[in-house]
Amino acid sequence: MAYFEVKILPFGKEAKAEGGASLLEVLINSDVPIESVCGGRGKCGKCKVRVSPGDSASSLSPEENRLLKAQEIAQGMRLACMTRVRGDIACEVPESSMRKGYVRDKTRVLRAVEPDPAIRLVRVRVPEPSLSDPSSDLERIGVAMKEGLGLSIEAIDPYCFSYGPSLLRREGLEVNVVTWFEKEILGLQGRRKGEVYGLALDIGTTTIGGYLVNLRDGRILSSGSILNPQVRFGEDIMSRISYAVNARDGLRMLKAVLMDDINRLVQDLCEKAEVETDEIFEGTVVGNTVMHHLFLGIDPSALGAAPFVPFLRRGLDVKARDVGLKINPSGYVHLLPLEAAFVGADNVAVILALKPYLSEECVLIVDIGTNGEIVIGNKKRLISASCATGPALEGAHIKFGMRADVGAIERVRIDRESGEVWVNVIGGVKPKGICGSGVIDAVAELFKAGLIDGSGRFARGEMGDRWKDGPKGREFILCKAEDTSIGEDITITQEDIRNVQLAKAALYAGAKILIGHMGVEPSRVLLAGAFGMYIDVKNAFVLGMFPCAEPSRIVSVGNAAGEGAIFALLNRKQREEAEKIAEAVEYKELTLEKAFQREFIDALYIPHRKDPFPSLTDYL
Amino acid sequence: MAYFEVKILPFGKEAKAEGGASLLEVLINSDVPIESVCGGRGKCGKCKVRVSPGDSASSLSPEENRLLKAQEIAQGMRLACMTRVRGDIACEVPESSMRKGYVRDKTRVLRAVEPDPAIRLVRVRVPEPSLSDPSSDLERIGVAMKEGLGLSIEAIDPYCFSYGPSLLRREGLEVNVVTWFEKEILGLQGRRKGEVYGLALDIGTTTIGGYLVNLRDGRILSSGSILNPQVRFGEDIMSRISYAVNARDGLRMLKAVLMDDINRLVQDLCEKAEVETDEIFEGTVVGNTVMHHLFLGIDPSALGAAPFVPFLRRGLDVKARDVGLKINPSGYVHLLPLEAAFVGADNVAVILALKPYLSEECVLIVDIGTNGEIVIGNKKRLISASCATGPALEGAHIKFGMRADVGAIERVRIDRESGEVWVNVIGGVKPKGICGSGVIDAVAELFKAGLIDGSGRFARGEMGDRWKDGPKGREFILCKAEDTSIGEDITITQEDIRNVQLAKAALYAGAKILIGHMGVEPSRVLLAGAFGMYIDVKNAFVLGMFPCAEPSRIVSVGNAAGEGAIFALLNRKQREEAEKIAEAVEYKELTLEKAFQREFIDALYIPHRKDPFPSLTDYL
Repeated sequence: MAYFEVKILPFGKEAKAEGGASLLEVLINSDVPIESVCGGRGKCGKCKVRVSPGDSASSLSPEENRLLKAQEIAQGMRLACMTRVRGDIACEVPESSMRKGYVRDKTRVLRAVEPDPAIRLVRVRVPEPSLSDPSSDLERIGVAMKEGLGLSIEAIDPYCFSYGPSLLRREGLEVNVVTWFEKEILGLQGRRKGEVYGLALDIGTTTIGGYLVNLRDGRILSSGSILNPQVRFGEDIMSRISYAVNARDGLRMLKAVLMDDINRLVQDLCEKAEVETDEIFEGTVVGNTVMHHLFLGIDPSALGAAPFVPFLRRGLDVKARDVGLKINPSGYVHLLPLEAAFVGADNVAVILALKPYLSEECVLIVDIGTNGEIVIGNKKRLISASCATGPALEGAHIKFGMRADVGAIERVRIDRESGEVWVNVIGGVKPKGICGSGVIDAVAELFKAGLIDGSGRFARGEMGDRWKDGPKGREFILCKAEDTSIGEDITITQEDIRNVQLAKAALYAGAKILIGHMGVEPSRVLLAGAFGMYIDVKNAFVLGMFPCAEPSRIVSVGNAAGEGAIFALLNRKQREEAEKIAEAVEYKELTLEKAFQREFIDALYIPHRKDPFPSLTDYL
Repeated sequence: MAYFEVKILPFGKEAKAEGGASLLEVLINSDVPIESVCGGRGKCGKCKVRVSPGDSASSLSPEENRLLKAQEIAQGMRLACMTRVRGDIACEVPESSMRKGYVRDKTRVLRAVEPDPAIRLVRVRVPEPSLSDPSSDLERIGVAMKEGLGLSIEAIDPYCFSYGPSLLRREGLEVNVVTWFEKEILGLQGRRKGEVYGLALDIGTTTIGGYLVNLRDGRILSSGSILNPQVRFGEDIMSRISYAVNARDGLRMLKAVLMDDINRLVQDLCEKAEVETDEIFEGTVVGNTVMHHLFLGIDPSALGAAPFVPFLRRGLDVKARDVGLKINPSGYVHLLPLEAAFVGADNVAVILALKPYLSEECVLIVDIGTNGEIVIGNKKRLISASCATGPALEGAHIKFGMRADVGAIERVRIDRESGEVWVNVIGGVKPKGICGSGVIDAVAELFKAGLIDGSGRFARGEMGDRWKDGPKGREFILCKAEDTSIGEDITITQEDIRNVQLAKAALYAGAKILIGHMGVEPSRVLLAGAFGMYIDVKNAFVLGMFPCAEPSRIVSVGNAAGEGAIFALLNRKQREEAEKIAEAVEYKELTLEKAFQREFIDALYIPHRKDPFPSLTDYL
């Protein structure tokens, strides 16, 4: 068996590949975030890569000849799934072929914020003590920092007490001092240690993302995500609050499982990057208000009923040990500020990452997680609201709904002529359910195929083999029992469609209210979060999810909340900006808006009862 | 059996006494700190009390007729030990009859400092939240405190998170807020709670004293002391350092046993006063530098060898939970500042309590614990030094030496004519050893009786039944085997005398050096600490322990260090004063003083080789 070198650009990776392997396999095995929808069958045309003309690749396949334009072929473009390794090869992955969910690469973050973290590592040469001078180690460290660096230290964390004096002497009075805002000493280190690390956490109701960052140069050393372990106590925010309030020891339990799993995630991130958890001296945390409160162990009961009051709202610094986060025990955790009970630190982080307040352009930012938050604004004004979309857009309260996990139908296509249904399943296995983006797709495709009307009702008429009678009326079969892993048909019900309508109407009506307050139509819609990454933008447009003239104006911006957390971790001015954002954003409580109910009812219609969608016919 | 009421003044106590009981018994059973040296035998004349002429007491005894002056008898003075209860009685204990070791009564502390503690309890009526106002509980508490009280709150302790929101609502938004320096919220309490408490700790090498204080009115609710549990790892400071540095896990162990026993002491103080430990929101701590460091868990190794460097010196605030002190976990511990490696926060507290810096008068303050610290000064200047007295003055390194505990000989008298030896034993039991004040007494009495000469050597001549030959030469028998509980003679050896000479010479020479720097003779010598409370001042004078013209100028001032800790607990300005004291006191390292060695050698002589003791003959 022959093995060849595959260079992967722009990642700077090198992989060893067996002769005859497809480039797609090589890229996936190398953790390259390449997009591929059809599962490597040469059908979706998503996995385009550029291969140097002289390189030893298999010749063009019929699939490539069909899916690639002549100009692309001339530029050396190939479909990774159809290109086989025949010798050493260099392969470039263009940005358009990267998975949208891919955490932005390092250079992107570096361009956005200059590292100026709260944590600094300063080399200090401490003056010698003497019998005639009774001054303490700390006073002499203070003098050295003041005279050498102009820094006035006010305090030292007590967890430095047990090792400080002997470390100082072992290192010959020349040490690295870890400081926080130049106010407090968080650690003393030997001269050979030259790095300090930070952790950014994005705590969602369903998913928790973590990023380990080198605080000196801003590089992301590792990232990962886990399921929020609180899911087993309730899928959505309200059921978490209810568990905290009603279950015996509920709050403590929710907090304990959360911290356990976050600490495991931190451990994993550290192992990947060969960093010790003790070398992490600060973490930033974003999340919705309930996740924020549960992370801090704050009794969330007042968030569960009107008037929905958070216990605290401003940005907060707490010792890592006081919240049970296992980084350096002297380290701090900074929680970004909240806007309101239903617009949390995650929304502040999204705004911080996307920075609409720096621009003349008015944008609409939509962040659909288990809760829907929308922001409209520009440099003049920012307005936010929370939309009660319900969990349908995340695949819950849908008959065969499930989370976006292996076995979930994430894409649906219905051929208008043949009525043939094509589905794409996460992980390429037999499906067991349908996730949020699949539900959106299914409803939009049913509408485009004329199988449901504008009111969302199934068309009457003959029952083909795609239809069946369920306990609550007609159901459309997406996948027949023999093709599923659960041994029964996976269907879309009339009730599922109704739930999607309720969700999209809440979103659309909320956006309309904010546009009304703003007095300006947004020129772009920015979709933040996981939902935005996997949704089919055109189908969302067809459904009328957002007021928008053109699908091309809808842009998925990736995990902006996580990015905002990284910004705040890396740069102290970003924290001040976050504080200003939280102060400046005007929160609108939609249930208090008179126009909301009317807008909501009009928006239940697909795409809308009244509003024109001029370019819609292009997409039907 | 008849029972009568005994009113005890000025303590405001009432006791029930059996007819025929002596007043001394009644007072001792009522925890009144009455002085009594002879054990109630009508011999020492110390237990004078005043009884109203009409009261039902036994008539004057022959002992009283002998020991009381005619004028005293006319004033209604009696000896408590000779006065028997015959009916209801009111008995006043004059200050001159109180034990010197008595912790100053409440009125004394109240007179000295006006309560203005760091901890305040403020009643707050929090504005109602509303759907249209997304502000948090904490913001609304802040508004209420700002508008109602002019207080700007910056932070809240995270340990309030779990109970804050529900407590607020349970109490109908009207709560008591516990604040620290009006900067941080340490607790929220129901309206019915109206008190906050504080704890003052005086951590000595051998003994730990604690005081539970009501922070609103400054009352001392309970006090108590325990043996420092670290004693089992070494009696003196140096052996503690050595254990911390050399024993496996030594530092952690020293810290752990200390905190365990302090927490038990706190629990006891709380039980006595019917207070919950959670209601204590602040503690102040004083102690020598090594105790200070071990309390904080600071590696003390740099204190164990020249140039003897403390890790930190300034006053310090740490969270109680971070040092393991079991008061309210949100509470703070304030450690008073240190002066130098061998002049610690206890010395600062002594100066704070005695306030020589407010006076024109120059005083010499002597605090002899396991270490000897001296301060000289007035409002112009303060100078301190540490004297290597060694542990002889605490009864260690003495053949039959022991701590001042039950069974210790604490007083010795030798009749010059008859040679008869009289001893007083703590607890009135058969003696098993001799404590510091007993050793001082024994050497002074031997000198006065001509049994040792000025160089400290035993007189030659015939061996009476009070002398015996020991392994290292002659020994003087204080107590014959049949009168002891250890079945052997308790003696004073030539080496014991030598150790006392070394200790007193160190003290005397140190004081001389400081007087030289000060350029002014002190008009009084203030003896602080337990040693000062039990020592026989005249015998200390005879030995030449301090440069002093008259024994009447030597004043025992009680536990001034503990009092300083209480001052700092009760009044925030006292903390600022403590900080200024630590800054202002000039520390003199005696080993660097050229004159010290000469002064030391001259001071080995009893009372001194050169210095005149003009009034000495009055006391021989």
